[in-house]
Formats: sequence, structure tokens, C-alpha cells
Amino acid sequence: MPRVVVDVMLKPEILDPQGSAILGALPRLGFDGVRSVRQGKHFELEVDEPVDEARLRELADTLLANSVIEEFTLQVMPL
Amino acid sequence: MPRVVVDVMLKPEILDPQGSAILGALPRLGFDGVRSVRQGKHFELEVDEPVDEARLRELADTLLANSVIEEFTLQVMPL
Repeated sequence: MPRVVVDVMLKPEILDPQGSAILGALPRLGFDGVRSVRQGKHFELEVDEPVDEARLRELADTLLANSVIEEFTLQVMPL
Repeated sequence: MPRVVVDVMLKPEILDPQGSAILGALPRLGFDGVRSVRQGKHFELEVDEPVDEARLRELADTLLANSVIEEFTLQVMPL
């Protein structure tokens, strides 16, 4: 069954407090060399064939991402 | 600057109520043909060179994923 991966991230201009909290914790925990952390959401969907990518983009735009503050990438994975 | 992407998902045997809620909402909202939805977390890190992948895996395992219930994939993106 085809698998579709959607990654939803805050737009670059939107502050990401979760990412900042992780970035702030890293040196305390002994991890150096990380310059930036941003956190988003990752969705894995299993869909029927044939894959209607335009429709899936509509789904992601409507339901998975908040287009005011977020942007997404969608990938149909090879079988 | 090298970019590292970490995707954290619940292990397949762990129930995913967020994914189930989305899956349940889809037909009501007019989206058919989706058989399964699982939701996880997506992290994008910018790190200094040289990239120490083993150390980054330790970071992901310790800080980004809860290894009791989650698993992660880590990808160092080409520059």
C-alpha cells in the first residue's frame, strides 16, 4: 500500500519555543556543536491506489498543517 | 552548515491516539482512501562540521525520543 509522508514545520519567521528549549538544554547535557533546533510534526499515511497527490496536498493543507503559521512538505514514498 | 533530520515515531505496537483521531475525522471531512495515519515528531538540526553521526544518534536517543515507546530515524542531509 502506498505510503505518504507529510512533514509540518513552523514557518521560519515563527518562533519555535520547543526547538529553543531543546537547543538550550543541549550544552547542559554535554552535547556541543548544535547551532539550531526546530521541531515539527511528522505524519505517515497509508493510502489506497491510485495516489491522488493533489488531493493529499489539500488534506495536508486543511487538516495536518495550519497554513497561517506552518508549512509542509509531502512525499509519496516509492513502493 | 550541515542539516540533520530526526523523525521520531511511536513504535508500531504502541497505540497512536492522535493518528487515530485524524484517521477518524477524514471521511467526515470528505477525504476517502486513507487507511492509516500515524503522527510523530520531526526535528531539524543545524550542526557544526565535522558531523559526528554516532554522537547525534546518542542525542536523538537520549533527548528527542523516548526509547521505551518511540523509535527514530536520523538522516544527515547532503550540503
